[in-house]
Amino acid sequence: MKIQGQPHRSIEADHATRAVRIIDQTFLPHQVEWCSLTTMEDAAEAIKVMRVRGAPLIGATAAYGMFFAMQEDASDKNLQQAYDTLHATRPTAVNLRWALDRMKRMLAPFAPPLREAVAWQEAALICDEDVQTNHAIGQQGLELFREIASKKADPSAPLNVMTHCNAGWLACVDWGTALSPIYQAHDAGLNVHVWVSETRPRGQGASLTAWELREHGVPHTLIVDNNAGHLLQHGLVDVVIVGADRVTAQGDVANKIGTYLKALAAHAHGVPFYVALPVSTIDWTIMDGVRDIPIEQRSAREVTHMPGLAADGTRYEVLITPEGTLARNDGFDVTPAKLVTALVTEQGVVPANAEALTKLSAAISV
Amino acid sequence: MKIQGQPHRSIEADHATRAVRIIDQTFLPHQVEWCSLTTMEDAAEAIKVMRVRGAPLIGATAAYGMFFAMQEDASDKNLQQAYDTLHATRPTAVNLRWALDRMKRMLAPFAPPLREAVAWQEAALICDEDVQTNHAIGQQGLELFREIASKKADPSAPLNVMTHCNAGWLACVDWGTALSPIYQAHDAGLNVHVWVSETRPRGQGASLTAWELREHGVPHTLIVDNNAGHLLQHGLVDVVIVGADRVTAQGDVANKIGTYLKALAAHAHGVPFYVALPVSTIDWTIMDGVRDIPIEQRSAREVTHMPGLAADGTRYEVLITPEGTLARNDGFDVTPAKLVTALVTEQGVVPANAEALTKLSAAISV
Repeated sequence: MKIQGQPHRSIEADHATRAVRIIDQTFLPHQVEWCSLTTMEDAAEAIKVMRVRGAPLIGATAAYGMFFAMQEDASDKNLQQAYDTLHATRPTAVNLRWALDRMKRMLAPFAPPLREAVAWQEAALICDEDVQTNHAIGQQGLELFREIASKKADPSAPLNVMTHCNAGWLACVDWGTALSPIYQAHDAGLNVHVWVSETRPRGQGASLTAWELREHGVPHTLIVDNNAGHLLQHGLVDVVIVGADRVTAQGDVANKIGTYLKALAAHAHGVPFYVALPVSTIDWTIMDGVRDIPIEQRSAREVTHMPGLAADGTRYEVLITPEGTLARNDGFDVTPAKLVTALVTEQGVVPANAEALTKLSAAISV
Repeated sequence: MKIQGQPHRSIEADHATRAVRIIDQTFLPHQVEWCSLTTMEDAAEAIKVMRVRGAPLIGATAAYGMFFAMQEDASDKNLQQAYDTLHATRPTAVNLRWALDRMKRMLAPFAPPLREAVAWQEAALICDEDVQTNHAIGQQGLELFREIASKKADPSAPLNVMTHCNAGWLACVDWGTALSPIYQAHDAGLNVHVWVSETRPRGQGASLTAWELREHGVPHTLIVDNNAGHLLQHGLVDVVIVGADRVTAQGDVANKIGTYLKALAAHAHGVPFYVALPVSTIDWTIMDGVRDIPIEQRSAREVTHMPGLAADGTRYEVLITPEGTLARNDGFDVTPAKLVTALVTEQGVVPANAEALTKLSAAISV
């Protein structure tokens, strides 16, 4: 997507010079800092301190980390060491493991002198596949948006899309999941306007999604999370679309905390609630998401403190509660399938129920 | 209620010395600053720059403002001038007007030399009546809490109460509305624990409610507004209680933005959702709150900026979005009566419907 009118990916690799660079997301939304990766350690550090975040982007960065390791020392021993070092950066990230396994499986059969070239190619392939998948998700979502827009009483009025958190290109290599249909609708000339929900505690909507949309030129308005019900109640939202961290085999959706409240409100007002995801996000081993998806408990500090930019241009983290206030911080919540209008995947739009998902599972494992 | 173990009101008057002081709420939650009022101008300024806030407390402060005016110059001319000056501080506050009208109506018939003493007495009466009303609301709510607590499977487990925004003693003279039953339950030895919802954008939950509860020693945990649905879904909330800015004759409730999302989630999980209010909050002229209650549009800056305390002890307001992000900031939302279990008033617990409210109206106008 675009930054100041220029197309970019969140991780960029130059095939001629084999240089790799990322946007250092710790500086967003106040500053765009590109950061070169030249060693395996660079890649590991970038993942660890969250210069890159978002499951697909973490996987892509780790893949280039394996390339740098092979560039330096393509021995079996170093292959395993690099795998271990990169894997330890964020051990619970499923995509990280997936990307590392894929790189290792691909590299191991080759003689060490060939591994550097193979690693470069495979890392690029991982990135390109991610872009393709998310583009396909966007195409599916775009059709839904066109249909909803065509039914609006006033066809010249904007299509009002509400989203939550950041399921955008900054979390992937490009396009994003929930934001992919929004970008494609905007690029196709659809009059789309986005309600960006702040997404406390970490504020990924207020910082990352608002930044992405501004840079790409998509009209949007920020709201506090509390405002979602009021807007839905007053007919100011035509469709809600969010990403997912995990979806069960019956279509329950684990996503950033606060998603469930939006789903309840959308349901109360008959507004479609879509979840955009690559099929790889579906956990086929679980049915009941409310019961069986473990919810990460995160630091209280994310609730009691807020980082931002003071008028003097300095970044501060400020305390917004009385000293010593206890806080509970569930990172995610689960939206039951019955509140989900459909899942928007690269394989098509799939109803959120066990029957439809069983069919999808059968189709993709053929 | 208590500050560091000592009982206080949000506005305190000494009958011997006729000194009046308030907590300067602009310093909360980071600092408790008492501030003496000695002139009508002091009172007007305190209301204007929000050293005091909350409808009942604004009214009480204005009443003492009238006393100071009479102390200085008890002429008819100054009576009217003081009325006008105080009224202009926050022209839309209903309680401000109500308190000023009451003071003027009471003072006008007296000869000027008597007015100072009458004004002192009447201002004190306004405060005491507010305390009585809120104490009565708390007694009604306490009975509800006892009933809910008695039905818990594990009677030794805490009664988990969720609230939103600040409907506490800092908004009134003492007790508060939604927090009054919580204080009374705690003081009566009930094992009560409060989920304090942050209440973006202004964070009155994170700052004021968390501070009140800490100072009075009531166990509580702060959450981001987004977390409410998850806690309700997992049985971690026994009852929700909030205040109200306006209630219609059929029981629709206008309250701080985000109240509606909590009501939807409470309803989805069969958790009682109570609204605590003095009967004076009911607007008998309106039925349909969603249609007819105007919603105040507030400054975008409340959404894009956040005030707080940096590690160096300095207070900063930090920008949390990209430069120039547009924001929409509805101050309130309306919860339809069908989601409200009952209204908790000083006149009793009243079902939120037109029939019950008509009866209440008839009873109080007898």
